[in-house]
Amino acid sequence: MSETIYVGVDLGGTAIKVGICDEQGQLLNTYEGPTETEKGTETIIDNIVKYVHLIVEQSTYTWEQVGGVGAGLAGFMDLKEGIILHSPNLPFRNVPIRAILSERLGKPVRVDNDANVAALGEAWSGAGQGVANCVCYTLGTGVGGGIIIDGKIYQGFSGVAGELGHMAVIPDLEAIQCGCGKMGCLETVSSATGIIRMAKDAVQRGDRTSLSTLEHMMAKDVFDAAKAGDEVAARIVNRAAFYLGKAMSAVAMVLNPERFIIGGGVSKAGDILFDEIRNVFYKLTPDSLQKGIEIVPATLGNDAGMIGAAGLFRS
Amino acid sequence: MSETIYVGVDLGGTAIKVGICDEQGQLLNTYEGPTETEKGTETIIDNIVKYVHLIVEQSTYTWEQVGGVGAGLAGFMDLKEGIILHSPNLPFRNVPIRAILSERLGKPVRVDNDANVAALGEAWSGAGQGVANCVCYTLGTGVGGGIIIDGKIYQGFSGVAGELGHMAVIPDLEAIQCGCGKMGCLETVSSATGIIRMAKDAVQRGDRTSLSTLEHMMAKDVFDAAKAGDEVAARIVNRAAFYLGKAMSAVAMVLNPERFIIGGGVSKAGDILFDEIRNVFYKLTPDSLQKGIEIVPATLGNDAGMIGAAGLFRS
Repeated sequence: MSETIYVGVDLGGTAIKVGICDEQGQLLNTYEGPTETEKGTETIIDNIVKYVHLIVEQSTYTWEQVGGVGAGLAGFMDLKEGIILHSPNLPFRNVPIRAILSERLGKPVRVDNDANVAALGEAWSGAGQGVANCVCYTLGTGVGGGIIIDGKIYQGFSGVAGELGHMAVIPDLEAIQCGCGKMGCLETVSSATGIIRMAKDAVQRGDRTSLSTLEHMMAKDVFDAAKAGDEVAARIVNRAAFYLGKAMSAVAMVLNPERFIIGGGVSKAGDILFDEIRNVFYKLTPDSLQKGIEIVPATLGNDAGMIGAAGLFRS
Repeated sequence: MSETIYVGVDLGGTAIKVGICDEQGQLLNTYEGPTETEKGTETIIDNIVKYVHLIVEQSTYTWEQVGGVGAGLAGFMDLKEGIILHSPNLPFRNVPIRAILSERLGKPVRVDNDANVAALGEAWSGAGQGVANCVCYTLGTGVGGGIIIDGKIYQGFSGVAGELGHMAVIPDLEAIQCGCGKMGCLETVSSATGIIRMAKDAVQRGDRTSLSTLEHMMAKDVFDAAKAGDEVAARIVNRAAFYLGKAMSAVAMVLNPERFIIGGGVSKAGDILFDEIRNVFYKLTPDSLQKGIEIVPATLGNDAGMIGAAGLFRS
């Protein structure tokens, strides 16, 4: 067996997931261990190195077959230098993660942010398989974006392309401030956080709705209520879908991708969300720009991060 | 002299402009002759062939040195097959222009639409020289767009990427219908046509303005009035600039280009337009996405089409 394999690392604040991928993007083995964020940068790096060795040892592959190790994480990065500038869920500050891991592992290392890596995973062996140009949205706490052109992550001039959650698509009269400091970002409405905020607002102002549990409300509760016929919940879901569809229409006019892939927790709502996204997208997009374009759910779930991280070595 | 040269053809409804470019995108010789649109497709093609031979004969180069002939024109094209589907200012309908010209000239031929070709010209040897990723707007009768990634035109999945004039950036309450059939496209406000429309509306509703000549008003008249202190004209200019800056902000979040280049007749308004575009862009765009990004006027003027057409052979 002289086949080359790649190890993908999904570095989260709680857990580190490592997976082995073959050259077709198939996930062969996985391992998950604690990040131990509270113990600081060195322990986290020790853990990554430990888990990468462990997954290879547990597999039928040899260390020599490892062609490279890719890692994805939430954070702002200097992608050219492979440095994590800062991260929302990890204690890294100006850590040259690529150089450190490469030296510790004795293998080529590539890093990118979690949204880009998830997009690459889906493009490689998920919902975008066989598609050269696709755009991915990850609807979670925020709205992440990733752009794949010719099968690779498109990073732009300074490595910040695909910030799709921060397009200002909400009209001024309805806009609220986003965590980024700007007004009216897509993320304020189409993320789980946005959906929960809208639901809490509705409950607080006394809208006639079955929604009520203010403390532990989840986006799923809002979708479930909408499916059960709650009109207030349905209106919230439609609003999240409307602005996503509107933002996608703008993206289509720029990039003319073949496929939009929508993942993340919120995307699990299914048809109730996707039907409205498609309605809006097709309504707002000129015919020539919507021809042949598909809008599909992500298929890899939480594995997209590991697969995409390994996919940083995709040729 | 064994240097390779390229011939660029700018095929307009009135005139055909042909130019010889060297491998650095410098325009060496040019020739312009009538299109004779009224005589139909065959005459137009005969004219292109005639002018291409003529410009080479008049130059110090030999026919053997011609590495290829590129052509740009207004119209909808099947870029993969090199077919013009239809054009607003030429009688072509489903004409396989690439194959026809290639056979007639005995040279490789490449074609693309005028906005893409102008963008490539600017990127090659105009305002985008040395920049890998840039986005160009051409503000004329409409608003054209062209995206250059890694020095090449980015065409997207079905060849219609960069339709930047049809982003829906005008709020619903102010939106009017665009020629494309959709509401609120950038082109309805930031084109010469849009500026003239807003000025005529202002005159007709009796706004206090120095603008008055309803019949032959030009966008330049509005800019001149604004520069002379006319507040109504200034408001129109600001509105055109505002929505362009807003659209560019959305594009920056997708593409993170290094430079925006703005050309076309309207761009000649100068600082009065550019200052406001920059104000709006920097206000609406998160810091990380505006860092290092420049917004500059196009520099090649009407030569951008010829140079970019030759640039279709840029390696």
